[in-house]
Amino acid sequence: MNNKIYFTPGPSELYPTVPQHMQSAMANKIGSISHRSQQFKDIYAHTEKELRQLLQLPDNFEILFLSSANEIWERAIQNTVESESFHLVNGSFSKRFYEISLELGRKATKYEAPFGEGFPIDQIEVPATAELVAVVQNETSSGAATPVEAINQLRSKINPEALLFVDAVSSMPHPAFDYSQIDSVYFSVQKCFGLPAGLGVWVLNDRCIAKAEALKAKGLSIGSFHSIPSLLSKAKGYQNPETPNVLNIYLLGQVAEEMNKKGIEVIRQETETKAKLVYEYAANSQTFDIAVKEPAHRSATTIILNTKVSSAEVIKKLAPFDMVVGSGYGSYKDAQIRIANFPAHSVSQMQALVYKLQELFG
Amino acid sequence: MNNKIYFTPGPSELYPTVPQHMQSAMANKIGSISHRSQQFKDIYAHTEKELRQLLQLPDNFEILFLSSANEIWERAIQNTVESESFHLVNGSFSKRFYEISLELGRKATKYEAPFGEGFPIDQIEVPATAELVAVVQNETSSGAATPVEAINQLRSKINPEALLFVDAVSSMPHPAFDYSQIDSVYFSVQKCFGLPAGLGVWVLNDRCIAKAEALKAKGLSIGSFHSIPSLLSKAKGYQNPETPNVLNIYLLGQVAEEMNKKGIEVIRQETETKAKLVYEYAANSQTFDIAVKEPAHRSATTIILNTKVSSAEVIKKLAPFDMVVGSGYGSYKDAQIRIANFPAHSVSQMQALVYKLQELFG
Repeated sequence: MNNKIYFTPGPSELYPTVPQHMQSAMANKIGSISHRSQQFKDIYAHTEKELRQLLQLPDNFEILFLSSANEIWERAIQNTVESESFHLVNGSFSKRFYEISLELGRKATKYEAPFGEGFPIDQIEVPATAELVAVVQNETSSGAATPVEAINQLRSKINPEALLFVDAVSSMPHPAFDYSQIDSVYFSVQKCFGLPAGLGVWVLNDRCIAKAEALKAKGLSIGSFHSIPSLLSKAKGYQNPETPNVLNIYLLGQVAEEMNKKGIEVIRQETETKAKLVYEYAANSQTFDIAVKEPAHRSATTIILNTKVSSAEVIKKLAPFDMVVGSGYGSYKDAQIRIANFPAHSVSQMQALVYKLQELFG
Repeated sequence: MNNKIYFTPGPSELYPTVPQHMQSAMANKIGSISHRSQQFKDIYAHTEKELRQLLQLPDNFEILFLSSANEIWERAIQNTVESESFHLVNGSFSKRFYEISLELGRKATKYEAPFGEGFPIDQIEVPATAELVAVVQNETSSGAATPVEAINQLRSKINPEALLFVDAVSSMPHPAFDYSQIDSVYFSVQKCFGLPAGLGVWVLNDRCIAKAEALKAKGLSIGSFHSIPSLLSKAKGYQNPETPNVLNIYLLGQVAEEMNKKGIEVIRQETETKAKLVYEYAANSQTFDIAVKEPAHRSATTIILNTKVSSAEVIKKLAPFDMVVGSGYGSYKDAQIRIANFPAHSVSQMQALVYKLQELFG
């Protein structure tokens, strides 16, 4: 039996009801049903309906199930970029999207802000030829967030033909996006949805679909089983082209339903309350300080602290108390800790973590 | 509570210990651990070790974890085919691999045998320019199998430079391959391994790896996060480039370990025994007959029967007895039934199914 509480930035603590839903799934043999059966279509339709409600999606947006955010990066480039993409980069994950575009043979350019900083939108020049503009709403590696207003401001600066893609891998459903200003947003279920890994969720509008169809009509390859048209043709009938991760689609529907019962506004408020607990502690700590200097750019869901003792030491000292935080990312491994603040983490758990950090490290 | 026994050709009955392993996984919070942690690397290493033993893999073969067999088809073409692939097609899945090559802009050619028939290897002319030759060992849609000897015979006919890819999606670990004669084999875990869907396993040798590296060195795009070099660089450290389906990698290790304890020869013998029960019944049935006429080409793991009553009627009449078989595939939906004969199905369960079919349909 493992009694640890995982404040790691994903995989992380499972949503509290997941073990019980998993037990139901096993008792009801959800892992054995056909991915072409009515029973599966009903599960898929339920998950889609609950997600649509939770994310407050307009009708011109579709939801597609892929296997990871990495895959979504690849499919986004394959399906919507003939020649050129532009990336706002301020950490390892936004940079990876840029690299994937290059690996797929596109011309990718970027504006790079220092690690841990947000984007000065008014200073960024977006090439008029960029077909896809990528912005990370929540950079999991650095804890820098892009406010919704800044994303909307970015939209006003780019070619109206360009598609605006938003990475909310580790923040969805927290940001209240204005869907009239963006074309796609995507996330992974092992972050804020508190599920086991193995499912990426791609939300995209009619403009993304039209672009994929236009590239296909020009005779360009947009991939195969996971091209947008292929995914969409099956999604319309509540299925996937391949046998998907059925269990995770089921679990996502259960968790999204519970989140809807709780209410998205309550979830957002709790997230803010817990973030405030950690940031206020860190602002006055003798050992830690807040990595992201600009308050407006501090993530609510992945909180990064600079640490005077090594992250390994922090992790080691927390272990006897069954609390796990993440080390820093990449070259910040030792010098930073990362604290996930997801809906699975209760206010009292976050309070307990803050008390313990205070007690151990001041 | 669902008490049905799923004889559907995948997803299918879970291996009997899976619910209990899932419970352990939840108790031990396997869904929360980092995919970069030592704990995960140990899980991955264990799964790889057990699979390597079960499949009796030589040292020049590697195991990679992807998300589906569909994805493996795509990655195989992207990574090992610059211009041309050749496909032996005798059903819907072997045909899909051929189509994926076309969708990715390659020249794909095929030899097509009628649905439900094996391949007359000595009559097939393989283009000398084909870089990848695809043969399906077990065609899940039609129940036609290609004996290992025929695969070896195929090897002797093809350009020595070409890579021989074997689809064993719904038969592995049953076929005793001669790994000196093939370059790659792949399978899905929701078939013979009795796991929930969401993981494809790609076994490939040094020649496949060298080909991917050669294409990359020529400046061609071989994909991004799931190119062979990218997968391999992480696999060497028991990880994946993306956050993978951690739970399924864990469960696969547990099931493979149990299969090893049972012994591959025992599993193969039981599979043959159960297949014989069904085929002998069907040969004498008033309602069913064996779809694959040539005994040497009959699958041991996915048994397809022609039915005089509709498949829907068969499925409906079995329902009160908590037994589920699959309908036929595609245009054979009504006229055939498909019975999975996987390691998760015990001899007594298969015997009970045969008795019930006899009682209901003669």
